[in-house]
Amino acid sequence: MIYLDNAATSKFKPPAVIRAALKQLKNSANPGRGAHIDAVNAAMLVTEARESVRELINNPRSEIIFTKNCTEALNLAIFGTIKEGGHVITTVNEHNSVLRPLFELERQKRIRLTVLPESGTTVTPEEIERSITRDTYLVCVNCVSNVTGEKADMEAIASVTSKHDILLLADGAQALGHINIETEKTRIDLLAAPGHKGLHGPQGSGFLAFSPDIRLTPLLFGGTGTNSDSVYQPLISPEAYESGTMNTPAIAGLNEGINWTLKNQTEISKRLRRLTHELIRGLGEINRITPYTYPADLNGVVSFNIDGMTSSAVGDILNEKFNIAVRTGLHCAPLIHKRLGTLKTGTVRASIGYNNTENDIIRLLSAVKDISSK
Amino acid sequence: MIYLDNAATSKFKPPAVIRAALKQLKNSANPGRGAHIDAVNAAMLVTEARESVRELINNPRSEIIFTKNCTEALNLAIFGTIKEGGHVITTVNEHNSVLRPLFELERQKRIRLTVLPESGTTVTPEEIERSITRDTYLVCVNCVSNVTGEKADMEAIASVTSKHDILLLADGAQALGHINIETEKTRIDLLAAPGHKGLHGPQGSGFLAFSPDIRLTPLLFGGTGTNSDSVYQPLISPEAYESGTMNTPAIAGLNEGINWTLKNQTEISKRLRRLTHELIRGLGEINRITPYTYPADLNGVVSFNIDGMTSSAVGDILNEKFNIAVRTGLHCAPLIHKRLGTLKTGTVRASIGYNNTENDIIRLLSAVKDISSK
Repeated sequence: MIYLDNAATSKFKPPAVIRAALKQLKNSANPGRGAHIDAVNAAMLVTEARESVRELINNPRSEIIFTKNCTEALNLAIFGTIKEGGHVITTVNEHNSVLRPLFELERQKRIRLTVLPESGTTVTPEEIERSITRDTYLVCVNCVSNVTGEKADMEAIASVTSKHDILLLADGAQALGHINIETEKTRIDLLAAPGHKGLHGPQGSGFLAFSPDIRLTPLLFGGTGTNSDSVYQPLISPEAYESGTMNTPAIAGLNEGINWTLKNQTEISKRLRRLTHELIRGLGEINRITPYTYPADLNGVVSFNIDGMTSSAVGDILNEKFNIAVRTGLHCAPLIHKRLGTLKTGTVRASIGYNNTENDIIRLLSAVKDISSK
Repeated sequence: MIYLDNAATSKFKPPAVIRAALKQLKNSANPGRGAHIDAVNAAMLVTEARESVRELINNPRSEIIFTKNCTEALNLAIFGTIKEGGHVITTVNEHNSVLRPLFELERQKRIRLTVLPESGTTVTPEEIERSITRDTYLVCVNCVSNVTGEKADMEAIASVTSKHDILLLADGAQALGHINIETEKTRIDLLAAPGHKGLHGPQGSGFLAFSPDIRLTPLLFGGTGTNSDSVYQPLISPEAYESGTMNTPAIAGLNEGINWTLKNQTEISKRLRRLTHELIRGLGEINRITPYTYPADLNGVVSFNIDGMTSSAVGDILNEKFNIAVRTGLHCAPLIHKRLGTLKTGTVRASIGYNNTENDIIRLLSAVKDISSK
């Protein structure tokens, strides 16, 4: 099978990821929950993984909270920073893991919400600045759209949010491991990321990185292994935000995934950009294709449709006749589809990973050409 | 090392658990997030795992939500059933994963909270019934204490809660896999459990089982793979409560863990009861020992102290001199320690699993005897 659904979960996992996860699966103990040697070793492993994340985002001061996926990290960031009655700015490019928490808060009349841009899909720092009101406390921006692969200008956006002393939450789901994100230099206050996509870690891993100046409200209350004489959650990071037994196999795997990704960053980026470019160019040469990815957005995510067909019809043929796995539909991002006019058809999304070769792109293009010519 | 910290995480994992988790680690795809064959296979695996949980709790109608641990399941149950201004009853035997969510809600004045029993540690159905007020909507009870191993009479308690039409939430953390819990027959409305303890699954797994008559408020909002055209969370179970990429390796492992545990239930229970009995009896023959586990509670969890020593001092010697891993301190359950008078010393907890043999108990008893004679 040709797997082109890496934006969902990267197919390639480095052998070290599998080995590290397997070791913890076989020899599990609870980090921070005992003084015996197995528990201490597990705790040291988690500490090491936090350091790997700090290295990845080049921010030695960052708080690192391990979560089960990017969705949990985004929920922790959004519910954890809420200012009752305040104002939040976000974009049409967001995934439902950002939109649904925000629209839930708006529905409960706990926040006011502005969704940008007014037209198109490209958010400018100027438009964000114009939308800021006296009570704006948070701006949530997707670094790379999971539908179009469009990249936000995080540096320019961060210069606006930091100037106005507003928190900036970055959704790094499709960015981490593919493009360089440095939270201190770029002044990103909160960064949520999955472990199992561009970082090549296991499913069940993810993290929220945030500035130590931020005090979050926890999402989950429970045992932290600290202040155990109290029935109230201690608000000390990271324990306050990691209640319950941690997923040591996933964290161990993520640690190795980050190490491998950092080591191979140049090669990964090069390959991703080259294959994305070839796919976009090739699609441009096929009849009846509507592309939704700008030629400059070489970030591994490419959406298109064959005119007159739904995306799921195309996806089914690719799967059944050509043994090619893409994803079709709305990709959990409704507002961008409203903007693209694809709410009914969805889009065919091919998402490229380290597993892919030039030949995969050639075969996808050939299959699409075949389908569009029928 | 002799591992006697199975109440934290069971040391023994059946080979099928490791194999199933490994297969998903190597070949990951997102269940419910694509129509291609890998995604469909992952979705079928999750469906199969839900059926295994239903078989385990002998309730074919139960809703099953996979969570990252028991803490998340308990938080989903407690925050998901909240009735503003209502009254909740719980017990001193609860873990902080129940107490901290409840005390947080009480602190916010969203609920009133009663903690039973008034003295001792044994909760009677009569005392629960006497504590019920007009606005009591939830009773939270730990099936087996993670400190003393004391077992609650869930049948008798459930007959009170169902008579008064009050929800019963059972914390199955130390019960599942060790004692039989049938949620339909016993009329347990919500049951939270970890996968990585008595069910011999991987860390990162857990579930909430609940009656299909209950409509929960989600804890996490995000992509569900359903109703993707809406920025509002669809309230359809199970997707509504499983936002984001699922931990397929952990769920696959848990599925096999449950299958193995069900097949070996009789042998597991027998061994656990026998070794627990031998440990309690042996401790009774050593000087300077204060036991905190009743001789009838043969559930694998045994707490004690050596008079004049803190639990951590004893644990450190067991670890360093005898290579025996127990857990010491408060075990994230402060209220029972207030009741036992062990808030300052904690307790030494030996928790028995399928990995343990008679010889482990003999060596622990010999080590404790050695320490207590010094």
